[in-house]
Amino acid sequence: MDLFEALTTRRSVRKYGPDPIPDEQLERVLETARLAPSWANTQCWEIIVVKDPDTKKKLSDTLSEHNPARKAMVEAPMVIAALGKKGLAGVKGGIPATKLGDWFMFDVALLLHQLSLAAWGLGLGTVHVGLFDHDAAAGILDVPEGVEVVELMPLGKPIGPAKPAPARKPLSEFVFSEKYPKK
Amino acid sequence: MDLFEALTTRRSVRKYGPDPIPDEQLERVLETARLAPSWANTQCWEIIVVKDPDTKKKLSDTLSEHNPARKAMVEAPMVIAALGKKGLAGVKGGIPATKLGDWFMFDVALLLHQLSLAAWGLGLGTVHVGLFDHDAAAGILDVPEGVEVVELMPLGKPIGPAKPAPARKPLSEFVFSEKYPKK
Repeated sequence: MDLFEALTTRRSVRKYGPDPIPDEQLERVLETARLAPSWANTQCWEIIVVKDPDTKKKLSDTLSEHNPARKAMVEAPMVIAALGKKGLAGVKGGIPATKLGDWFMFDVALLLHQLSLAAWGLGLGTVHVGLFDHDAAAGILDVPEGVEVVELMPLGKPIGPAKPAPARKPLSEFVFSEKYPKK
Repeated sequence: MDLFEALTTRRSVRKYGPDPIPDEQLERVLETARLAPSWANTQCWEIIVVKDPDTKKKLSDTLSEHNPARKAMVEAPMVIAALGKKGLAGVKGGIPATKLGDWFMFDVALLLHQLSLAAWGLGLGTVHVGLFDHDAAAGILDVPEGVEVVELMPLGKPIGPAKPAPARKPLSEFVFSEKYPKK
């Protein structure tokens, strides 16, 4: 797939078919994801690949009842639990190097966007799921202290018609020249 | 450019030629960047395109003396100041919706990775610069309270030979199956 086709057609997928993902496709997605950039190459990320239907169901129960991703998480053949190890990105000797604190959220996002694009290029879909009970998910997955479950991202084959893309702001609303405009 | 070529060859660029970037290339990069996903499509990001040599120099002075990106910021024809508006991503009615607080760092990272890949596809380079005096940069750019300068990303034409890619962890070190491993 062409790069710009991927960047402009990628969509959040909330309806998945049950087909398993061939191991070599999953490996290509993960091998591509690992090349994402990170703060001083600290690679603070970890991934748990969850295929077990019982665990997927338990994870989906950490979402609110009305979240459409709840069903997606059960239907997709796997969920990528994306973790961030604290104290590495943007941190030196235990002290944040900037006013923005620990940069693990930033770096996990880089990894997940790289992963989502690689998946899309292979005909697979993903969706960012960040709204759930993070401590409950950590408990289900045995994630220790010092590591945060950031997202639970379903990965699978999209089915059904795609909804129209949500409208984005035009550049004129958020791109400024030289200085922040007076408001 | 092929998607996987872009995802696997993209590199951080720290040496830039002085050639200006044609307006239509910059527009294509920004038009592609704006299609990045975000928390409930809140698009908490803003961008300031800095081309003025004096402002670029002032921004570069917010980096530490030994940061190689300092020179890059002066040499590149422009710097993309990536801002995050607080209180939108991961926040509802002023209250964080998750234990992870405000998600502006996550969403700005999605935007910047999308932007970097689009730039790479047009033969342009970028580098993540997150280590600088964020308040000083906000002052230089007139950025108001409630908005954070997250990164200062040079954008321009790479020159000189690329250094070898920094080594990444193998999948076996950070991808786990079903549960976090006992350590």
